[in-house]
Amino acid sequence: MDSKLEAILLEQGRKARAAARYLATVSTTVKNEALMAMADELEANVATILEANKIDLENGRQKGLSMALLERLTLNEVRVKDMAQGLREIAALPDPVGEVLGMWRRPNGLEIGRVRTPIGVIGIIYESRPNVTADAAGLCLKAGNAILLRGGEEALNSNQIIARIIAEAAGQCGIPEGAIQLVDSEDREAAIFMMKMNDYLDVLIPRGGKGLKQAVMNNATVPYIMTGMGNCHVYVDEAADLDKAKTIVFNAKVQRPSVCNAAETLLVHSAVAHKFLPSMVEELQAAGVEIRACERSRAILGNVKEASPEDWDTEYLDLILAIKIVDDLEEAIEHINTHGTGHSEAIISQNYSNVRRFMAAVDAAAVYANASTRFTDGNVFGFGAEMGISTQKLHARGPMGLQELTTTKFIIYGDGHIR
Amino acid sequence: MDSKLEAILLEQGRKARAAARYLATVSTTVKNEALMAMADELEANVATILEANKIDLENGRQKGLSMALLERLTLNEVRVKDMAQGLREIAALPDPVGEVLGMWRRPNGLEIGRVRTPIGVIGIIYESRPNVTADAAGLCLKAGNAILLRGGEEALNSNQIIARIIAEAAGQCGIPEGAIQLVDSEDREAAIFMMKMNDYLDVLIPRGGKGLKQAVMNNATVPYIMTGMGNCHVYVDEAADLDKAKTIVFNAKVQRPSVCNAAETLLVHSAVAHKFLPSMVEELQAAGVEIRACERSRAILGNVKEASPEDWDTEYLDLILAIKIVDDLEEAIEHINTHGTGHSEAIISQNYSNVRRFMAAVDAAAVYANASTRFTDGNVFGFGAEMGISTQKLHARGPMGLQELTTTKFIIYGDGHIR
Repeated sequence: MDSKLEAILLEQGRKARAAARYLATVSTTVKNEALMAMADELEANVATILEANKIDLENGRQKGLSMALLERLTLNEVRVKDMAQGLREIAALPDPVGEVLGMWRRPNGLEIGRVRTPIGVIGIIYESRPNVTADAAGLCLKAGNAILLRGGEEALNSNQIIARIIAEAAGQCGIPEGAIQLVDSEDREAAIFMMKMNDYLDVLIPRGGKGLKQAVMNNATVPYIMTGMGNCHVYVDEAADLDKAKTIVFNAKVQRPSVCNAAETLLVHSAVAHKFLPSMVEELQAAGVEIRACERSRAILGNVKEASPEDWDTEYLDLILAIKIVDDLEEAIEHINTHGTGHSEAIISQNYSNVRRFMAAVDAAAVYANASTRFTDGNVFGFGAEMGISTQKLHARGPMGLQELTTTKFIIYGDGHIR
Repeated sequence: MDSKLEAILLEQGRKARAAARYLATVSTTVKNEALMAMADELEANVATILEANKIDLENGRQKGLSMALLERLTLNEVRVKDMAQGLREIAALPDPVGEVLGMWRRPNGLEIGRVRTPIGVIGIIYESRPNVTADAAGLCLKAGNAILLRGGEEALNSNQIIARIIAEAAGQCGIPEGAIQLVDSEDREAAIFMMKMNDYLDVLIPRGGKGLKQAVMNNATVPYIMTGMGNCHVYVDEAADLDKAKTIVFNAKVQRPSVCNAAETLLVHSAVAHKFLPSMVEELQAAGVEIRACERSRAILGNVKEASPEDWDTEYLDLILAIKIVDDLEEAIEHINTHGTGHSEAIISQNYSNVRRFMAAVDAAAVYANASTRFTDGNVFGFGAEMGISTQKLHARGPMGLQELTTTKFIIYGDGHIR
């Protein structure tokens, strides 16, 4: 990589580290004032933000970005207001820092407590949506962390202006200069370099598609939290209420197929497959869903595409649904634990023991009984905003709110105690 | 690496994965029965264990292992009994799996809970002490995880017999075959290969010296929890009770200098340095401690070795102490946050505000007021046995007990809910 860019990134890292030390003990009041000021300034500068966004959109059109990508990239007055509102909601959330998770006295009289503290410096690499710039910065600030933001190349102008506005607003409330910084380059190498900045970044959170995730897995030496890999299943049990099943499967597949908590495979118990599948599939097809079915399902459904072994492992993020008939609950659980990505999994059943077994045996961030997988979301769960949905098991699992952006330390009070 | 060994390791990984799925829902009763049987069988087979240990000790002597290493390697009746007792204590601890950390109802009627679950398969790479084989296997089993153990080459015979005894005892109580497995090879490449077994290991815990830690940092693609890097400080404040300070500094340095929670650097406020340092150093030197002092300390102490810049970053694990005079509390905090490894840090002070500031601003797993750093230990903290002391911020920080060997999942109960 260009050595000048490298020097800039290292300098940003140093500033972030210094800011993080300071932020660790900044009062909740100061952080909340900063968040409110950031919100106000975004709203006050909406015209400037939309101007910068226009440049990104024009560049995007010239580069031939898809309509979907351009849509995600687009800001308007409402979206800027939503960003501001998001920051105000973060200000209203309780401060996780300083929360004492327990305190106890040992036989020797030592008092030992466990207290929440910020992690330090968080790096986030994300794509297209410029609102993530404000959301992520707000969450990190509230949890007492410095943040280094690396947005998508296509949103550079929008991100630059948003980052500048919120960093300046925060600065005027006493937040140190390096607390909110944007990596100011379209160079892909900058993201790769960031993944190796172990001296300055405590954790890396990638938010984006497969390419980004693969790049992180291949390059990152900074510990990372993998987010949003969602090969999700709905299992319709033999004891399912088939009306509920139909509503839930339709919602999980169709309501917003491009997101990680949408269902990709439908598993159906063989005892209800004949009754359930034909009308279910008809409804799905009417909504434009392409079906890829196992042999036994095809025997029932007739003219639908055959699922290949790869289909069981594919996150379509599209109006495609794989369908497989299983002979019992255990086969469904085994299929999910083998092919799932540990995101969101649902059973539809009225049978108490089957629900209980599914909830216990399925290994995923979110396991549902009789509800759509689409609910896996920090806001829906009641955490306020979220930093993404972790699909790993260490540190954070599922929607990551403020708590997941903290670590803990032990505090020990003695009075001359020795061992 | 030898492709035969590679195939064996992959087969062990597959077995561990299968065992972990099963273990995730095994009842507490079965796990406790297994732990008690493991303890009984260790005691019943003490003669066989000591025989195997004898071979390791003889090999070790021939290889010219140091007395200290041979001592760590040595088992005797008491130590085998202690191992068994450790397993019984783990049986007596509450089962972390299934603990509901919270459950709430959302406005739409969905009930969302967060429940502790096992991580899956845990790999542990450790050195010399054969008792770790039983301790680590016991903790992992209780937390519902399968374990792949890779002990030190010098302890192979001891580890083999211990692992065989406990795995068989567990098996007879209904624990599946792959739940406790030892990597049965002295080949260093086997450990390196293990660090990359991402399909089969969910987390890697290295317990050992610098060489092992460096190897993990360089090679591991499996997420790991770094343990036991301890460049610990004691800061003697201007408001310190100097008698308490002397007792604590002596204890933190001398009581067991080879462990990670022993102090390596003494920071002294300039206002008390003249009064405190001469008698403190005299006492330390009488106990055989080598002093490496900053220039200002040397002006007070006279004939002691000069500290080099490297000394501030060195974990001696030996009877050596670096000494530095600082001009205020903030300089002490800055020194610790710059040079410390985030393990255990102590302030000795009678000043309320200074203690409060130190506890909040020092970024470490354990921060002490008026007590020795030597207390950082799972048993001392009241967690029962420990899997090591994490010096990282993600997932686990400080002594790792059963809780740190678990992850969580969200369980969501609905009744036809869609988004």
